[in-house]
Amino acid sequence: MQPRLSLVTLGVANVARSRAFYERLGFVASPASNADVTFFSAGGVVLSLFGREALAADAGVENTTPAPFSGITLAHNVASEPEVDAALAAAAAAGGRIVKPAQRAFWGGWTGYFADPDGHLWEVAHNPHFPLDASGAVVLP
Amino acid sequence: MQPRLSLVTLGVANVARSRAFYERLGFVASPASNADVTFFSAGGVVLSLFGREALAADAGVENTTPAPFSGITLAHNVASEPEVDAALAAAAAAGGRIVKPAQRAFWGGWTGYFADPDGHLWEVAHNPHFPLDASGAVVLP
Repeated sequence: MQPRLSLVTLGVANVARSRAFYERLGFVASPASNADVTFFSAGGVVLSLFGREALAADAGVENTTPAPFSGITLAHNVASEPEVDAALAAAAAAGGRIVKPAQRAFWGGWTGYFADPDGHLWEVAHNPHFPLDASGAVVLP
Repeated sequence: MQPRLSLVTLGVANVARSRAFYERLGFVASPASNADVTFFSAGGVVLSLFGREALAADAGVENTTPAPFSGITLAHNVASEPEVDAALAAAAAAGGRIVKPAQRAFWGGWTGYFADPDGHLWEVAHNPHFPLDASGAVVLP
């Protein structure tokens, strides 16, 4: 298996509401999107929004009430500390909930978290140890 | 905010166990990894493994018992139907649990699901409507 994550799908309560939230953040929906599903190009990976119940059914697992912590976080890495503050402010302005205001991380970066309308957690981080390439993707050591 | 997903972190019960599972699948750990965290280049995005409790603490949220359905799925898209079968077989051989055997999707593709050691769900899919570029990344319409 090629080591590749192609697509991440967030199960949401209301696709239209979540799509509007991510559009306010600057994501642009692909024309392949429809009322039931939204697809965003998100760098080298696709971010998709799908009804939570439909997503569970697609996987053939039982849907369960969203837990306070899903066990998965997403991250948006940026090139500088002020860009962390700006992205968190943009997320709050778009209707996101600031879960952890920007602060110094023990590993030396500057980082905070916001939650999308369904509580999916996004870290916004400047990590001085993980440079970004020209497109903005993280380059691992 | 630039529309980019930089990194996805899976909260896991045992980082070493999960790292070994993903290495058996073909992922290669970055030297930036250590006993507490693993980083894999996964195409244009980084896949990271971190203790579930530590991840909740990092976000400043309460850790909760893993639910049967996290509300998020990952996907690995491949160029042909036989590659779906091969990837699911590789996942099973690596110790993954087949949640949904490969089958015809209503949208015309060929797709199945496996779960990693913590139950994180991966879809393996061939989607004839989403071509892959030379690197293997999905190209959205």
